[in-house]
Amino acid sequence: MADDNALTFYFDFVSPYAYLAWKQIQNVAARHRRTLIVKPILFAALLNHHGQKGPAEIPAKRIYTFKNVIRMAHFSGLSITPPAAHPFNPLLALRASSVPMAESARLALIDAIFDVTWQGAKIDGSRDVTDPKTIAALATNVGLDGAKVLEAASSQEMKDRVRIETENAIAQGAFGVPTMIADGELFWGADSIPHLEAYLRGEDPANRERLNMFTEIPVGATRQRSPS
Amino acid sequence: MADDNALTFYFDFVSPYAYLAWKQIQNVAARHRRTLIVKPILFAALLNHHGQKGPAEIPAKRIYTFKNVIRMAHFSGLSITPPAAHPFNPLLALRASSVPMAESARLALIDAIFDVTWQGAKIDGSRDVTDPKTIAALATNVGLDGAKVLEAASSQEMKDRVRIETENAIAQGAFGVPTMIADGELFWGADSIPHLEAYLRGEDPANRERLNMFTEIPVGATRQRSPS
Repeated sequence: MADDNALTFYFDFVSPYAYLAWKQIQNVAARHRRTLIVKPILFAALLNHHGQKGPAEIPAKRIYTFKNVIRMAHFSGLSITPPAAHPFNPLLALRASSVPMAESARLALIDAIFDVTWQGAKIDGSRDVTDPKTIAALATNVGLDGAKVLEAASSQEMKDRVRIETENAIAQGAFGVPTMIADGELFWGADSIPHLEAYLRGEDPANRERLNMFTEIPVGATRQRSPS
Repeated sequence: MADDNALTFYFDFVSPYAYLAWKQIQNVAARHRRTLIVKPILFAALLNHHGQKGPAEIPAKRIYTFKNVIRMAHFSGLSITPPAAHPFNPLLALRASSVPMAESARLALIDAIFDVTWQGAKIDGSRDVTDPKTIAALATNVGLDGAKVLEAASSQEMKDRVRIETENAIAQGAFGVPTMIADGELFWGADSIPHLEAYLRGEDPANRERLNMFTEIPVGATRQRSPS
């Protein structure tokens, strides 16, 4: 049964903005008495769907993105450290986070994977979340059976689950990560958390009437490939 | 002679984020005793250069962008109203803003064009900044010779100037608007203004040492077009 009081958090470990939002979202859900639903999805598939480039795929933007997350982390009081490599293939970590388990264990596992990726934490000396041994050790460390989590993460069912949740996110209008959805209202990016909280307080200034003013205007020009 | 104390503001009237930044940047420059240098550039050419889509070109993102700017304006205490059409062709407005004139007149003209575009202001009943009559009237209204500004805006020299300044922005690493540059340090987006101000106070947490940690890591994966 759908939870009418849900706050859904779509994320990919590859995104430093997802990390910054992750470190705040459990408190946001608690403050507003929302049930946090976490959904690991593949950011690259969102980019493919929308024909868009990710911030790490435009050289000038890649450097700026790193500076921006250092600054955002600093002013949010969060620590951030680069992963062992970036971008990296997040599929194993996403699938492991999707394996059926108690929600408290899932939150702990996701937190542990984020900490190894973006906070400099190590497990058995490793910071490589693309390595099955690292994922198994992290699962064991939060009280799960690491070998079983790893086996389940490699199943077709978990491959399908990440793909289906990614498609669900796209169907709900997601075009990036993190995406947070409450009552069908979508918020994108770590910097949208204050807007999400205003919405959850019933104080969203982007109400239907205001929005219609913007969505009802015509498109006046489309981009030409070679502007004069 | 280059102004070592400059704060350069690259913008395009088509961007609501450029409008939100514009309404703050003169105060930022004054607070930090920087000389504000304004540079009208063509956002579409930045997108073309980087092979990127603009927020208005991804349907789900277009709606979200409008909501986001309503929220950002609200929480910044700024009013925002949609333009007559969007996107629109900004070239005439950009070229008119590039015509040689006193800098005080230029700031007033840019402010007037932004107000007609994003604040609901009208001049002679018009809100259409793609209309030469509107641009001429706005120029006249800020004390310029409207007919002369319009004539100069249509010259090859002004076409070249906007193109060259756009190329200059790209050469300095710009990939979007607004882009603000101080001492070669680039800040992108209205939401980066607090980061810009931290930099101008000498308190940028993204110092060289921190940044090198991020830029020296290897690329671990590149996106495939059809992730499994």
